[in-house]
Amino acid sequence: MTIVKGSKKTDMAKPKNAFYAQSGGVTAVINASACGVIETARRYKTKIGKVYAGRNGIIGALTEDLIDTSRESAAAIRALRHTPAGAFGSCRYKLKGLEENKAQYERLIAVFKAHNIGYFFYNGGGDSQDTAYKVSQIGERLGYPVVCVGVPKTVDNDLPITDCSPGFGSVAKYVAVSIREAAFDVASMAKTSTKIFVLEVMGRHAGWIAAAAGLAAEKASDAPHIILFPERVFDEKAFLARVDQSVKTHGYCAIVVSEGVKGPDGKFLAESGLKDAFGHAQLGGVAPVISQLIKDKLGYKYHWAVSDYLQRAARHIASKTDVEQAYALGKKAVELAVKGQNAVMPTIVRKSNRPYRWEVGVADLADVANVEKMMPDDYITDDGFGITRKCRAYLEPLIQGEDYPPYKNGLPSYVRLKNVAVKKKLNDDFSV
Amino acid sequence: MTIVKGSKKTDMAKPKNAFYAQSGGVTAVINASACGVIETARRYKTKIGKVYAGRNGIIGALTEDLIDTSRESAAAIRALRHTPAGAFGSCRYKLKGLEENKAQYERLIAVFKAHNIGYFFYNGGGDSQDTAYKVSQIGERLGYPVVCVGVPKTVDNDLPITDCSPGFGSVAKYVAVSIREAAFDVASMAKTSTKIFVLEVMGRHAGWIAAAAGLAAEKASDAPHIILFPERVFDEKAFLARVDQSVKTHGYCAIVVSEGVKGPDGKFLAESGLKDAFGHAQLGGVAPVISQLIKDKLGYKYHWAVSDYLQRAARHIASKTDVEQAYALGKKAVELAVKGQNAVMPTIVRKSNRPYRWEVGVADLADVANVEKMMPDDYITDDGFGITRKCRAYLEPLIQGEDYPPYKNGLPSYVRLKNVAVKKKLNDDFSV
Repeated sequence: MTIVKGSKKTDMAKPKNAFYAQSGGVTAVINASACGVIETARRYKTKIGKVYAGRNGIIGALTEDLIDTSRESAAAIRALRHTPAGAFGSCRYKLKGLEENKAQYERLIAVFKAHNIGYFFYNGGGDSQDTAYKVSQIGERLGYPVVCVGVPKTVDNDLPITDCSPGFGSVAKYVAVSIREAAFDVASMAKTSTKIFVLEVMGRHAGWIAAAAGLAAEKASDAPHIILFPERVFDEKAFLARVDQSVKTHGYCAIVVSEGVKGPDGKFLAESGLKDAFGHAQLGGVAPVISQLIKDKLGYKYHWAVSDYLQRAARHIASKTDVEQAYALGKKAVELAVKGQNAVMPTIVRKSNRPYRWEVGVADLADVANVEKMMPDDYITDDGFGITRKCRAYLEPLIQGEDYPPYKNGLPSYVRLKNVAVKKKLNDDFSV
Repeated sequence: MTIVKGSKKTDMAKPKNAFYAQSGGVTAVINASACGVIETARRYKTKIGKVYAGRNGIIGALTEDLIDTSRESAAAIRALRHTPAGAFGSCRYKLKGLEENKAQYERLIAVFKAHNIGYFFYNGGGDSQDTAYKVSQIGERLGYPVVCVGVPKTVDNDLPITDCSPGFGSVAKYVAVSIREAAFDVASMAKTSTKIFVLEVMGRHAGWIAAAAGLAAEKASDAPHIILFPERVFDEKAFLARVDQSVKTHGYCAIVVSEGVKGPDGKFLAESGLKDAFGHAQLGGVAPVISQLIKDKLGYKYHWAVSDYLQRAARHIASKTDVEQAYALGKKAVELAVKGQNAVMPTIVRKSNRPYRWEVGVADLADVANVEKMMPDDYITDDGFGITRKCRAYLEPLIQGEDYPPYKNGLPSYVRLKNVAVKKKLNDDFSV
């Protein structure tokens, strides 16, 4: 028997490589999905060659700046599960329609072809699922089919079909823990000092995160006493009356406000009050605006906090449920891909609330792309300042369990990967 | 033998009761000290009767609004160890000099006498230790001696003699964890989005908390890249140059700023820029001011966070060392009191850095009262933007270990006491 040696033969026998990229705002658990993708791909060696990651997301693919994850140890990849943010870098970069941006899609395919990439895992929100869907189409059209699988991720929880999105449960837990703790503090001080505490949370379009803070209130006297949602127009009079009532009843008032709250004029409250020394409007956060309003109209002493990135990076207090789901979806994405399922996204399917049971399902990317899931109207109480039982029943399971990272010297021990670059093959510039 | 019944006889045989109050801004571990005081007092039944707590601190003593802690179960008192903030309420209320405020000191003694209180435990910062000292003096003078023992507490870490103060270690851990996590986030996004992150932390006069954030940086490339201390006048030019250098070297810049940073004019930076819609200066936090400055001068996209009360209430990520010390000092306060040691405060004495070893010592209140411990000059690097090795060696042990609270329904299970009032005996009003 003669063994035929030849690069062509070898190439054909080689399993296709995979490309994985993180997209948009990162979360406390997006790396847990990366961990699920990479660990699972390593178990399918006959079907998937190497996993290349895009440095800074899809930009890494466009500029042929790929990271060879096979250069990372099993321990390093395992540590991704407990490391927040995007280990390979993410980006805010949306590919537009196929016709407008044809050159970019063609470029993606060229890079995939050059690096023998046959799988595309895109870890992101609605825009990213749309991109993944388009890549699956253009691949076919250009005669280089790529199996495209989306991995859901968004702290905004606005992806459709999936019951929830990885990243959200951990932010939810962070804001609920934070308002509970801060409210214990304010309650202690209220007799002679601070009576008002305002916590600003993320959510420019949807109030999912603000709603989650409501989990801290197990009875009427508990904080938060007021939640301000972007889904409700800010009603100054009703709001101030409620603040005053809360102070008179409970001695203090703890408020959670979504950054996206708008006034009757349709403008963000955050933009309404502050001007810098030169008279320019300044986006100083909505918390100080709300606080100042209370001080001006009711005279109460206030404190306010803006968590900003702390809330979505807070891996130290991540929801165990969220971490498990993030990992499971990354794992499932690979399992779907090796079965040749194209243009799909694994989802969380809720089987029951109490006890909470979930399993992984599958959605078509065509159905996911560019659809936003808003908070149901009946999740907000009639007065507009709280969450309903129905909302609580939905949210509560998502913050269950703690998944503490390991600590070293008193601090969480998060991994930084080597992120070794793959040798370029195209050697041409492509500007993004 | 005839048994003489009579209230006088019974009163004399009864051990004296104790009074415990929380003072000033609360912390994540002040209740751990309360736990130490109450649990230990319960073990000295022959020497200490009941422990009465002041509702809302010393105001509770002045208005004869006492809480009977004997009505709380052992489990509830044990749970104080893992519950943040002040379980009995605290207050910002400083008793002035003995001569100016004689009526108030006399009132305290009258209330103590009416309730057979012979021990006074005051859990607070410098002002409170001063008050405890004065009470010990006035008691003697008025012929009703009270054993006064201070229990140190302050997130500001500015009490003298004691190596550190309970409350500080947990804030220190929170800010170091937070800047590490947020910096992982910014590093992921910096290629196409946010390049600057500013975290504002507490510390109006001293930079201890800002310094603690520096523990997150294990090497030069780690966040925080810049710390702004109240001990250093803000140098705009040097600061901006350093920000720019950090972005050019690391791709991003993570900054921790103490709320107390002042400009060359001696004014807080937080007061420098913002005006509300009516043109009034607004204390909007220093983080947005710093962020806007960077945007204006260097053009980088920014995010900022203000932790405010979240940092000092964050029991979920408390330092185990801090919790143990808080409890140990409460316990020691009672042990000193039953030995009749008056006008003293238990302290933390550091025996070694590595391994960290500490023991409890004793200071005279006369030496503690009204002395502020500033951060040593050689704890800040020459450029004014970081901490020295010496500072790190001091701070590092204080954040060691985690002491997670129990969780229920995904949230920390913190105790709320019944706080049953003691029946008044004086029945007269005293306005504070």
